[in-house]
Amino acid sequence: MRTSGRKADETRSVSITPHYIKHAEGSVLIEVGETKVICTATVDDKVPPFMKGQGRGWVTAEYSMLPRATQTRNQRESSKGKQSGRTMEIQRLIGRALRSVVDLSALGERTVTLDCDVIQADGGTRTTSITGAYIALAFALNRLLDEGKLQQMPFTDFLASVSVGIVDGEMLLDLDYQEDSRAQVDMNIVMTSSGKFVELQGTGEEAPFGRSELNRLLELGEWGVQRMIAKQKEALGPIADLIGEAIAHAAG
Amino acid sequence: MRTSGRKADETRSVSITPHYIKHAEGSVLIEVGETKVICTATVDDKVPPFMKGQGRGWVTAEYSMLPRATQTRNQRESSKGKQSGRTMEIQRLIGRALRSVVDLSALGERTVTLDCDVIQADGGTRTTSITGAYIALAFALNRLLDEGKLQQMPFTDFLASVSVGIVDGEMLLDLDYQEDSRAQVDMNIVMTSSGKFVELQGTGEEAPFGRSELNRLLELGEWGVQRMIAKQKEALGPIADLIGEAIAHAAG
Amino acid sequence: MRTSGRKADETRSVSITPHYIKHAEGSVLIEVGETKVICTATVDDKVPPFMKGQGRGWVTAEYSMLPRATQTRNQRESSKGKQSGRTMEIQRLIGRALRSVVDLSALGERTVTLDCDVIQADGGTRTTSITGAYIALAFALNRLLDEGKLQQMPFTDFLASVSVGIVDGEMLLDLDYQEDSRAQVDMNIVMTSSGKFVELQGTGEEAPFGRSELNRLLELGEWGVQRMIAKQKEALGPIADLIGEAIAHAAG
Amino acid sequence: MRTSGRKADETRSVSITPHYIKHAEGSVLIEVGETKVICTATVDDKVPPFMKGQGRGWVTAEYSMLPRATQTRNQRESSKGKQSGRTMEIQRLIGRALRSVVDLSALGERTVTLDCDVIQADGGTRTTSITGAYIALAFALNRLLDEGKLQQMPFTDFLASVSVGIVDGEMLLDLDYQEDSRAQVDMNIVMTSSGKFVELQGTGEEAPFGRSELNRLLELGEWGVQRMIAKQKEALGPIADLIGEAIAHAAG
Amino acid sequence: MRTSGRKADETRSVSITPHYIKHAEGSVLIEVGETKVICTATVDDKVPPFMKGQGRGWVTAEYSMLPRATQTRNQRESSKGKQSGRTMEIQRLIGRALRSVVDLSALGERTVTLDCDVIQADGGTRTTSITGAYIALAFALNRLLDEGKLQQMPFTDFLASVSVGIVDGEMLLDLDYQEDSRAQVDMNIVMTSSGKFVELQGTGEEAPFGRSELNRLLELGEWGVQRMIAKQKEALGPIADLIGEAIAHAAG
Amino acid sequence: MRTSGRKADETRSVSITPHYIKHAEGSVLIEVGETKVICTATVDDKVPPFMKGQGRGWVTAEYSMLPRATQTRNQRESSKGKQSGRTMEIQRLIGRALRSVVDLSALGERTVTLDCDVIQADGGTRTTSITGAYIALAFALNRLLDEGKLQQMPFTDFLASVSVGIVDGEMLLDLDYQEDSRAQVDMNIVMTSSGKFVELQGTGEEAPFGRSELNRLLELGEWGVQRMIAKQKEALGPIADLIGEAIAHAAG
Repeated sequence: MRTSGRKADETRSVSITPHYIKHAEGSVLIEVGETKVICTATVDDKVPPFMKGQGRGWVTAEYSMLPRATQTRNQRESSKGKQSGRTMEIQRLIGRALRSVVDLSALGERTVTLDCDVIQADGGTRTTSITGAYIALAFALNRLLDEGKLQQMPFTDFLASVSVGIVDGEMLLDLDYQEDSRAQVDMNIVMTSSGKFVELQGTGEEAPFGRSELNRLLELGEWGVQRMIAKQKEALGPIADLIGEAIAHAAG
Repeated sequence: MRTSGRKADETRSVSITPHYIKHAEGSVLIEVGETKVICTATVDDKVPPFMKGQGRGWVTAEYSMLPRATQTRNQRESSKGKQSGRTMEIQRLIGRALRSVVDLSALGERTVTLDCDVIQADGGTRTTSITGAYIALAFALNRLLDEGKLQQMPFTDFLASVSVGIVDGEMLLDLDYQEDSRAQVDMNIVMTSSGKFVELQGTGEEAPFGRSELNRLLELGEWGVQRMIAKQKEALGPIADLIGEAIAHAAG
Repeated sequence: MRTSGRKADETRSVSITPHYIKHAEGSVLIEVGETKVICTATVDDKVPPFMKGQGRGWVTAEYSMLPRATQTRNQRESSKGKQSGRTMEIQRLIGRALRSVVDLSALGERTVTLDCDVIQADGGTRTTSITGAYIALAFALNRLLDEGKLQQMPFTDFLASVSVGIVDGEMLLDLDYQEDSRAQVDMNIVMTSSGKFVELQGTGEEAPFGRSELNRLLELGEWGVQRMIAKQKEALGPIADLIGEAIAHAAG
Repeated sequence: MRTSGRKADETRSVSITPHYIKHAEGSVLIEVGETKVICTATVDDKVPPFMKGQGRGWVTAEYSMLPRATQTRNQRESSKGKQSGRTMEIQRLIGRALRSVVDLSALGERTVTLDCDVIQADGGTRTTSITGAYIALAFALNRLLDEGKLQQMPFTDFLASVSVGIVDGEMLLDLDYQEDSRAQVDMNIVMTSSGKFVELQGTGEEAPFGRSELNRLLELGEWGVQRMIAKQKEALGPIADLIGEAIAHAAG
Repeated sequence: MRTSGRKADETRSVSITPHYIKHAEGSVLIEVGETKVICTATVDDKVPPFMKGQGRGWVTAEYSMLPRATQTRNQRESSKGKQSGRTMEIQRLIGRALRSVVDLSALGERTVTLDCDVIQADGGTRTTSITGAYIALAFALNRLLDEGKLQQMPFTDFLASVSVGIVDGEMLLDLDYQEDSRAQVDMNIVMTSSGKFVELQGTGEEAPFGRSELNRLLELGEWGVQRMIAKQKEALGPIADLIGEAIAHAAG
Repeated sequence: MRTSGRKADETRSVSITPHYIKHAEGSVLIEVGETKVICTATVDDKVPPFMKGQGRGWVTAEYSMLPRATQTRNQRESSKGKQSGRTMEIQRLIGRALRSVVDLSALGERTVTLDCDVIQADGGTRTTSITGAYIALAFALNRLLDEGKLQQMPFTDFLASVSVGIVDGEMLLDLDYQEDSRAQVDMNIVMTSSGKFVELQGTGEEAPFGRSELNRLLELGEWGVQRMIAKQKEALGPIADLIGEAIAHAAG
C-alpha cells in the first residue's frame, strides 16, 4: 500500500477541464492527482524555415513551470535569461511524442504550438503534459475541421503518457513527487491506443535494472496509458469519434 | 452603456479563490472579469545583499503572462532570453505598491516574493495582480504569525488597484481589453483603504488630459479601489480583522 | 529654503547647447543644475515591422547613463548583457511622451530615434531627457523640412517635463539627487504648453499622499513645465515659431 | 547487408587512443567508425553547492561538437550565446550514466568533469561519448589512486553505450549517420557489464514499435555494449583489473 | 597636403578639460580634432579575485561609444545584449597600456577602472582614449596621494598614444575618419616619454608593408606621442611634476 | 639554451596532417610543438549582408579552445553564454590576416569560414591557427578550382605567423607556454612569403621595448615565418605550385 492509499498499479485521479483558456484554439486544464497543467494549442498558418514549401505541417511544444509550482521557489527562466536543460529536454519530448501521431501532410502548411504550463507540480509533470497536450491539440484541429480548413482529423492514433518506477524495491505506476524523489528507477512511457511505444525513457541512476523488471514496468505503463486514453476520450466526447474514424481510415 | 452592459462606474465581477497553489506560503487565484491571475507569496529567511544587517525585511514581485494568455500567442521571455520592458515595469510597480503598506522593520530579515502569473488576460492585468498579491501576501504573513515568527500583522494599511480611462470621450472604471485598446487616456491607480494614493500612473499618449478630467478619473478610481478592498476583506475573513487591528495600532 | 538656496517652487538653472554632436540629425546638451544629458535624434527612412505600410511614422527613445554619471560607479548594461528595468521603464516613458505631440501621419514612414545619454546625474534625469529630446527632435524635423521632405513641422504641441515631490513634508519643484533620495513622494509630470497632462507618474512608496497634496504638486509641476518650455523656445529660436504655426494649424 | 558491408548485429571498428590530451587528469580519443570524440576528465577538489558538506563527490559532463564535425557547418553555441536543447539533453545523459556506476561516497568531496568534444560526427556521438568518458574517468581516478588520494577504484561496475534502431524494417546495431537519418526507431542503450540497464531511451517518432521489436533491439544492444566494454578493458590494461577488484569488493 | 590642411606629420588640435565629471575620482574630456572622449577614473578598495592577497593593485578599462557618436547610428551594446569584439579588443588594449606604466605594488590592493566613453568619433578613438585615460588616472591617484593613502605617484613613466597609417601611398600621423577609412596600413602606437614601445598594433589588411615603411611610421608615431605627452603635462600642471619625480625615483 | 633545448632562433617541430576532418571542404591538424589546432574551411555560396551585390567574396574565422586544452580547465564559452574578449580578438586577427592575401573579387560571392579549434595549447595558439588556416583555406579553394567554380587560385601571396618575445632579457623565436607566461615582451607577426608585414602586434606590458630590440625581434620573426611557409608548401604539395603561379600572375 502506498502512502496515498493507492495500489501499485493504480493511477491517481484524473480531472480534465476543456476550453480552460478562452483565447487559445484549443486548451485544457489537466489535473493528475495534485499535478496541474494548463495546455494550450496555438495554430499558426506558417511553418518553421526548415519545413517551408513541403506542403507539410509541424507540431511543436513548450514547457514551463510557474516559479512556485514546486515546494521551494524556482527562479524564473526569463530572469535567468535561459531555459534549463530539463525544460528543453521535456519540451523536445512533448513535441516529438505528439508529432508521432499526427499526419503532417494532412495538417497542411501550419504549425501547432502546444504550451504546457505547470501551475502545480507533484510528480509526472511531463507525462501529464503529453496527455493534456493531446487533448488541446485535438480541440484545435477540430476547430480547423469546423472551419473547413481540414477534411478530416489528421491523427494516426490516440496517445498518452504515464510514469512508472521502482521505489523501495516495489514497481509502481504513476509516481507522485514523494515516490519519484526516492525512486531507484524512473521511466516515462508514451504509448498509442494500439499499444505501441512512441517514447521510452528509463533511467536507473540510483540502481540499474534488469530485463524482468523492465518487462513488469512496461506492463504497468501500458495499463496506465490505456486508462489515460479513456479519460481523454471522455473529455473529447464526439471529437474522440472523429479521431477514431480518422485512425481507422489511416490504418485502412 | 458599455458593450459588456456595465455602467461607466461599474467594475467587472470579482472572484477570489484562496489557497489555490498548495506549495506556496500564500496564494490566490483572482479573476476580474475574464482576467485571471495566479498570485503566490514565497517567504525566504534572507534579504537581498543591499538590505543585509539592517534588521528589516523586503517585499518584491515578479510578473509574467502565459504565452497564450492573450489573443495572439506571445513568445516566452525565457526563450527570448530576457524580460520585456513592459514586464519589468509592471513587476517593479507591484513590488513598490506592496512595500508601501508593509512595515519592513516589523517583518524582520525576511523576503516575501510575490509571483503574479497571468493565465488569461482581458485588460487590467497589473491592477488585478496588485489586488491579488495583497491577499497572497496577507496569507503568507498570517502563517508567520501562526508560527510565532511575527507578533502582529506588519501591515500599515489595506491596498488595492484599479484602472480608469477615457474611451470615446467617456470616463470609465475598470477597462477590459477592448476598451483599453482604444482608450485615449489610461490610468492605473493604487490606493489605500484610507483613500491615499500610493501609485498614480496616467498616460495620454493618444490625447492629453486636463485637470477636470483628471479629477473625475480619480473619483472613479477611488470608488473602484474601495470595492476591490471590500472583496479582499471578504476573501481574507478573520485575517482581515487582524490586519485592521494592526493598522489601527500602527496609526495609533 | 532648500540646501541649494532655491525656493520650493524654483527650478534649477537650465543650460542648452544646440547641435552638440555633429553627426546627428538633431542634438543638444541639456544641463539642469548638475544633471547633464546628451540628446540626439536619428532619422531613419524605415518604420518598425508593426508599423509598415500604414503611411505613418514612429518616434522612439533609448536612455542610458555613463557608468560614472553617478556617485558610485554602475556596471555597464552592455557588460551585464541586459538593460535594467529602470532603463527600460525610462526609455518607454520618453518615447511615449514625445509621440503624444507628434502627428505620426504627417511624419511619413520614418522613424526618429531619440538617444538620451546621461553623462552626469544629479536627480531628474528622465524629466531632463524628455525636455532635451524634444529639442533634438525639433532640430531633426526642421532639417527634414529644410530638405523638402516635410511640408510643415509635424508637432501638435510643445512638451516638457519636470519632477515634483514631498521632502520632509515640504512640496518641492525640480528635486536634485539629495532631495530625491529622501523624498516621501516623487512625481514626474510631462505636460504640453496648453497645460494638459501627457504623463503623470507619482509614487508614494515612503508615504501615501492625499488629494490636496496631489493638487499642490500638480500646480508646482505646471509652473515648472512652463519654465522649461520657455527655455526650449529660446534654444530653438525661429524653429519655435515654425512649431507654433504648426500647432495653431493643427488646432485650427 | 548494410551499405558499410556490416551485418545487422555488427558494430563499427573501435579505436581508442589513451592519454590523448596531455594536460587532463584522464583523456582519450575514441573513434567508432568515422565518429571521433575527445574525452577528458578534470578533477577538482570541490563539489557543487548543492553537494557541500555531505562527504560525497560528484561526476558531471559537458558535450559539444566542433562546428564542422558535421556535413554542414553548425553555428557555434558560444556565438549563439546558448547551448541547444540537444546539447543539454546529451550532457545530462552522459553525467547521469557515469554517476550510476561511481560510488560517490568513496570518491570523496571531489568533482570529476567529463568533457566530450566531438571532432567528427557520423552517428552515435552520444553513445561513443559515454563509452569514451568512462575510460577518461578511469584514468583520472587511477591517478588519484596513485597519488594516495583514494584507497580503491570507486567504481561499482563497467559501463558502455551503443545505439540500436529500426531502418527500413531491419533491426540494426550501432547506426551510422546515414542509417540514423532514415531510422523509424532510434534507441540508445547504456548498460553495465552485469547486463543491467542504466539508461534506455527509445523514440519512434517515425513509427511506433511493439514489445517484440523492443526485445530484439535490447538483445542487439546488450551484445554491442559487451563488445564496447571489451574494448574499454583492452585500452585500460591493468587498470581494468583494479576496477574489476573494486566491483567484486562492492558486490561482495 | 591633407584635406584638413594638415601636414603629414601634424597631429590634430588637442583640447583637454580636466575634472569634467564631478562624481569621478579623476576625469577629463579630451578632444583630438573632432573626436571627443569622456574618460573617468573610479577607485575601488578591492581587487579582482585573481589578484587577491598579493598586496598589489589593478588597473582596468572599459570603452564604449554613444550610439550616435558615428555618422550612422550604432545599436546599443546593452540592447544587443553583448559587447562587440571591437569594443572588447579596445578596452583590453587600454587597460594593458595603462598597467604597463603603473607600479601595481605601490598602488596597493586597489582597482582603478578607466571608463572611456566616446561621445563623438572622428578617427583615433582608441588612441585618444589611452591618452585621456592616463590623465584621468593621474588625477585619481593624486587624490589618493592627497588623502595620504599613497606615499608617492605609482607611475613608472608618462604614456600616450597616436595612430599612424599609409593613405594613398602617403605616410600620415594621426588619421581622421576619412583618412582611416581609406588607409592601406593602419597602426596604433602606445609609447612612453622615454621613447619605448608599450603597444604596437599594425595591420596591412589592404596592403602589406615592408621594413622601411614600418620605420618611417614609427618615427611619425614617436613624434606624435611626444606631442600628446606635452599636452598631458600641460593639463596635469603640478601633478606632472609629482609624476616626474616618481619616474626619476623608480628609474633611480 | 632554452629548457626545451632549442636555440633562440629555432622554432618547434611542425607537423601537419591534411584532410583531418572528412566533412569539411578543407581541413588540417597542425601541431607546433605541443600546441595542436584543428583548422577547417567551410565554403558557403553567400556573403554577409554588408557585402551583398558587390561580386566579391569574404573570408572570416572563428577560434575556440576545448575546455581542457589548457593546464586548468576553462569554462565553455557556450555555457557562459558569450565569447571572451580574448577569443574575439584572436578570431578577428585570423580573419583579417587571411583576407589580406585573398583576392576577394576573384573569389566571387562566396564566404569561406575558417574554424580554428585548439585541442591542446602550449603557447602560440593564434599564430599556429593562422598558419594552419591558410592550408585549410588552400585545400578548400583548390576544391572550388577542381569543380570549375574558380579559374585560378585567388591568392595574392603565401602567409604564415609566428610569435617572438623577450624572456629573461633574451630574444626568442616561437615561445612555448612556459616562456610566454614569463615574457617581458610578446609579439605576434603575420607575414607574407615576400617578407611584408600583414599584422604586427607587440605588447610590452611587463617592460616596454626600444627600437633596436624591435628590429631584432622582427628579424627572428621573419626567419620563423619563412620556415612555417616552407612547411605549408610541403603539406600542400602540387597545390603550392598552383598558388605560386597565381601569385606570379597577380604580381605580374
